[in-house]
Amino acid sequence: MEKRKKLVELGLKVLNDIKNKKNPTIELPVRTLSNIYFDEKRRLIKIGNKFAKRSYLNIAFSRKFMQTLLVAAEAKKIIDEGVRISIRDLYYALKHTIGDTKENTFEEQSESDPIIEDLEAMLNLLREELNLNADRKGYMAGNIVLRDAGYEIDCSKMGSSGWAIPSNVEKDVIKFVKNEAEYVLVIEKDAVWQRLNEDKFWEKNNCIILTGKGQPARGARRLIHRLHHELKLPIYVLTDADPWGYYIYSVIKQGSINLSFLSERLGTPEAKFIGLTVDDVKEFGISKNVTIKLNENDRKRVKELMGYIWFKPREWQKELKEMLRVGYKLELEALSSKGIRFITKTYLPHKIENKEFLP
Amino acid sequence: MEKRKKLVELGLKVLNDIKNKKNPTIELPVRTLSNIYFDEKRRLIKIGNKFAKRSYLNIAFSRKFMQTLLVAAEAKKIIDEGVRISIRDLYYALKHTIGDTKENTFEEQSESDPIIEDLEAMLNLLREELNLNADRKGYMAGNIVLRDAGYEIDCSKMGSSGWAIPSNVEKDVIKFVKNEAEYVLVIEKDAVWQRLNEDKFWEKNNCIILTGKGQPARGARRLIHRLHHELKLPIYVLTDADPWGYYIYSVIKQGSINLSFLSERLGTPEAKFIGLTVDDVKEFGISKNVTIKLNENDRKRVKELMGYIWFKPREWQKELKEMLRVGYKLELEALSSKGIRFITKTYLPHKIENKEFLP
Repeated sequence: MEKRKKLVELGLKVLNDIKNKKNPTIELPVRTLSNIYFDEKRRLIKIGNKFAKRSYLNIAFSRKFMQTLLVAAEAKKIIDEGVRISIRDLYYALKHTIGDTKENTFEEQSESDPIIEDLEAMLNLLREELNLNADRKGYMAGNIVLRDAGYEIDCSKMGSSGWAIPSNVEKDVIKFVKNEAEYVLVIEKDAVWQRLNEDKFWEKNNCIILTGKGQPARGARRLIHRLHHELKLPIYVLTDADPWGYYIYSVIKQGSINLSFLSERLGTPEAKFIGLTVDDVKEFGISKNVTIKLNENDRKRVKELMGYIWFKPREWQKELKEMLRVGYKLELEALSSKGIRFITKTYLPHKIENKEFLP
Repeated sequence: MEKRKKLVELGLKVLNDIKNKKNPTIELPVRTLSNIYFDEKRRLIKIGNKFAKRSYLNIAFSRKFMQTLLVAAEAKKIIDEGVRISIRDLYYALKHTIGDTKENTFEEQSESDPIIEDLEAMLNLLREELNLNADRKGYMAGNIVLRDAGYEIDCSKMGSSGWAIPSNVEKDVIKFVKNEAEYVLVIEKDAVWQRLNEDKFWEKNNCIILTGKGQPARGARRLIHRLHHELKLPIYVLTDADPWGYYIYSVIKQGSINLSFLSERLGTPEAKFIGLTVDDVKEFGISKNVTIKLNENDRKRVKELMGYIWFKPREWQKELKEMLRVGYKLELEALSSKGIRFITKTYLPHKIENKEFLP
């Protein structure tokens, strides 16, 4: 198993340092903003090639060094036992007082979580591959059949709930068995997903509908990535017309600054933005009544987005400027003011047929 | 359909008032604290029998009167169309400017949501029965087969995800087809649920495991109620040992003050509390290291709970006093400090076999 091998190599490296009477040292990619850049060609937020040393006999690093090895050792242990645990379990499993000292290995989970990310960046592994689970949310339905932990899940037969996207969607757990869908519609809000599911939008339009319930958890982002890269499905994203919705789209598309070291596995640069846009209000004759006035915080955030390199394409600059000009935002549910089925019968078919997307 | 009939009757009543040249008036239960009590016999938080009049020709009430009829009319409309919508959709569907005035029917969703609750209390119907969806969360797995919107869902074959509990679990949507499980274990935290699901706790112990992910949404509470009342399954609740966990238990058991008018349908007074308790630390030899010191907010909340009539049983008073005395709380994941499988192999079997429950 490659992941096990990487953990063993890390341990052997430290052991060798000790045997050779060298200061035990590990190297890991710098994860601060100074080492993060936007790869224009791949269109992904990525981590650069600066590395930092973390050594045991350096008082500034010895605590973190110890913690790193503890987390790595526990990961190897649970992989060997074949169990999956939560990142909170990991914290509690490792928390103890060291020998006769009054020093605890960890005081808070906020100490162990970044160490897990260090290991992910250092070993180029997802925490899910280290058998660690975290928060999950999101649902999916459509003409696709999966295998999950040995059971066949037909996402066209999941009733009103849909299939719940698990924390870990790596290939050894979730396998794509059969797909007939032609594209994936990613929806910001679960309430809108439920509306589309009830109308069997996925059946009538032969697609997959997926919601991340707000900013998608890693499992949902990884799943979108896999659906696109393995099944060659186009990804269309539907959010509120507001800076928060646009940011959700951008994280699905090119990854995030926080998890820049994972963008290659979590990002989907070919994703397209279907809406809502400010122009939709005019184009679809939506009443001004159901728009919401931008507040100071919204305006500030729109201006921040305008500065991000990945929002530089002219269509996005135009959209963001237009939002500031008209001074309002628009929620997905506002389409209900045109009738409950307006979104499934008019809005989405029109946008998809005419390929009215933002890049 | 009974629910449709109730809505029609409401409309006819108002129409009759107008025909008879009376001030159109509706009556609804008072939902303030003054009309809420704890029914000691049923062991449920309930609403009393005070009613208030809401009439059209009373300037203090005409806006709310108009809103009540709008929501009732929309509910009837979607029931007739056979569609389900979210409470946010409802708000947007109804929001408009009235005639030539500058008055909007609703300004914010915080105006339409309480009107929905008014209708629920007035008609003794759940909003789910009015075809209105809201937030959903929670998962379930175990030896039970359901029908959801016509599809058979075998909760023992749902892989790592489990079955996602929908917003609406009423009998016309979710039917119990076959049950072999002997009890239901309700778990506060999804991470712990995932651990139990991975160990197939439900298979080895022939039970159903269910998580509400924190304070359960209405769908999950209603499902627990149905599992107990229709399938006669005992309900055991597992939460953190802290006032927030205990409160989650109390809401599952006897309902909440906010939704007192629904306790008969949402509450399960026969539910038992399995843990964690403060005594578990001593009984199971859990390291003090993984307990968390109570903060001021925790202490305040514990004292509040001690005052609630439904925490008056002597076992609960003892538990709450003991928590204040030892000065710490304990999270479910802290059991991982005794080994990852301690919860499934030792803690839960011991508690259930010995019926070590709090009432």
